Amino acid sequence: MSIVVVGSVAFDSLKTPYGKREKILGGAATYFSLSASYFTNVRVVAVVGEDFTSEHEAVMTKRGVDMRGIQRAPGKTFFWAGEYGENVNEAKTLETQLNVFEKFDPQIPAEYYDSDYLFLANIDPVLQTRVRDNMNHVKLVGGDTMNYWIKDHRRNLGEMLQRVDVLLINDTEAKMLAGDSSLPRAARKVLEMGPRALVIKHGEYGATIFFRDGEFAGGHHPFRAPALPLDEVRDPTGAGDSFAGGFMGYIASQGEVNRRVLKHAMFYGSVMGSFSVERFGTERLQSLTREEIDERFNIFRELTHLD
Amino acid sequence: MSIVVVGSVAFDSLKTPYGKREKILGGAATYFSLSASYFTNVRVVAVVGEDFTSEHEAVMTKRGVDMRGIQRAPGKTFFWAGEYGENVNEAKTLETQLNVFEKFDPQIPAEYYDSDYLFLANIDPVLQTRVRDNMNHVKLVGGDTMNYWIKDHRRNLGEMLQRVDVLLINDTEAKMLAGDSSLPRAARKVLEMGPRALVIKHGEYGATIFFRDGEFAGGHHPFRAPALPLDEVRDPTGAGDSFAGGFMGYIASQGEVNRRVLKHAMFYGSVMGSFSVERFGTERLQSLTREEIDERFNIFRELTHLD
Repeated sequence: MSIVVVGSVAFDSLKTPYGKREKILGGAATYFSLSASYFTNVRVVAVVGEDFTSEHEAVMTKRGVDMRGIQRAPGKTFFWAGEYGENVNEAKTLETQLNVFEKFDPQIPAEYYDSDYLFLANIDPVLQTRVRDNMNHVKLVGGDTMNYWIKDHRRNLGEMLQRVDVLLINDTEAKMLAGDSSLPRAARKVLEMGPRALVIKHGEYGATIFFRDGEFAGGHHPFRAPALPLDEVRDPTGAGDSFAGGFMGYIASQGEVNRRVLKHAMFYGSVMGSFSVERFGTERLQSLTREEIDERFNIFRELTHLD
Repeated sequence: MSIVVVGSVAFDSLKTPYGKREKILGGAATYFSLSASYFTNVRVVAVVGEDFTSEHEAVMTKRGVDMRGIQRAPGKTFFWAGEYGENVNEAKTLETQLNVFEKFDPQIPAEYYDSDYLFLANIDPVLQTRVRDNMNHVKLVGGDTMNYWIKDHRRNLGEMLQRVDVLLINDTEAKMLAGDSSLPRAARKVLEMGPRALVIKHGEYGATIFFRDGEFAGGHHPFRAPALPLDEVRDPTGAGDSFAGGFMGYIASQGEVNRRVLKHAMFYGSVMGSFSVERFGTERLQSLTREEIDERFNIFRELTHLD
């Protein structure tokens, strides 16, 4: 099994109450790939600039990530600078330089076409839709988006939503997308826009998956995975993408997609998100073992299971 | 088995996006009693004024609540008027008239002393401490408090915290009490103040119980119960007290207090909270059946359990 992810590779400068880092490897596709690499083969499609070195590449290739879909463009890699205060759920953006990402035109290498799973990280929904239509044969497509596209690119986003099986967004984005302040009602409205399932991430409160009626047979109730109550969230950057990597990576490793698989995927998503925030950048995601992952999976089970 | 609850009986005037009600029966002890009455015998200690009629009393006695600890004082019953906007997690207080509650001096009827469980709803911590010391023989004491006591009555609250086994508060109160914006760290600090376990209620995200090291043997991990994703929260008033009623009521029905019982109590707390907010005031809590409660318990299980 393998999964193709299309998204950003970036450099981040970060400040949190626990310290700061300058220009470290980041980007949705990077977090996603490293996270998913513990479950399945990952193939990435992204664009980087001339400042992306073989050392940066090695971070991904060491985890077996297929980099043939990485385009190298003249100029600099996408750069983001941000700061987190005591409330780690809210990032303050200090600077964004799109650089080579501004003209990103995702090209799927021919060798990637036998992948059965696809994840559309947060990029222009027009590009997401195009990639999705190119990979029309896949078993399951996951997708992400953000407030920028929800506010000002509603029509294009609507096209994308009709082509995605599972949408992964956070509370604020779900409420904004649906124009409804009740989360369960917002969930239903978003499901009416196309996705067969909707994962809403609640930050430190975990995440809930809502199912469209009749999809993924096995009851009509949503399912909620907890987050680990962590004393120290050193760097929340990439938590959502790490969640998506664990979620989609686990699904891709299972051969079939049913409600049981999706529930376990919710737990693995939460597990990977919880690891990601323990250290700065992708540090923790680079050095995990499957044993550590399953150990934490069991903690999540203890955290929520009655028996 | 039986439980004694000490707290407020009140009249509430409420406005929510779903409608409004004038001077309906409310108060922490009322919500708690009705909720707990589905699990165990409940004995209430409170004060009411001359406007508390036999009809109001019948709401409680119909559910078998022992009213011998209700004092009747000249004047009016405690009155609260509040309003909820789209964000149902935040009440805006429009008016508070303490009335007879201002001089509340809880008296435990002699017949109540054979109760093994005690719940100290949100009242002056000096009174909570006095009641607790009077009922020194009980197996387990639960308690609640609020930001007013945390801010301006810290010393008295500290005394109370050393006498309570399980404290039930919400996120904001826990962070304020600990002076720490990290919830798990705040939880640990609050546990150092006395309670053997701490239940932190997260509103629509459920609730987490944290255990003091070595207490309630059976692992050192916290336990999280979900909330039901409800389309329509008609009236959030009393949700926390209904949670406490289900939580403490279930414990009192079990004979022994161990981690397994506490975990199930978390679920029953969430169940009762979810019923309470479906209708205005105590309406839904008056007419439940144990069957409906256990049916919803099973939904909560489906919502969180992998298998």
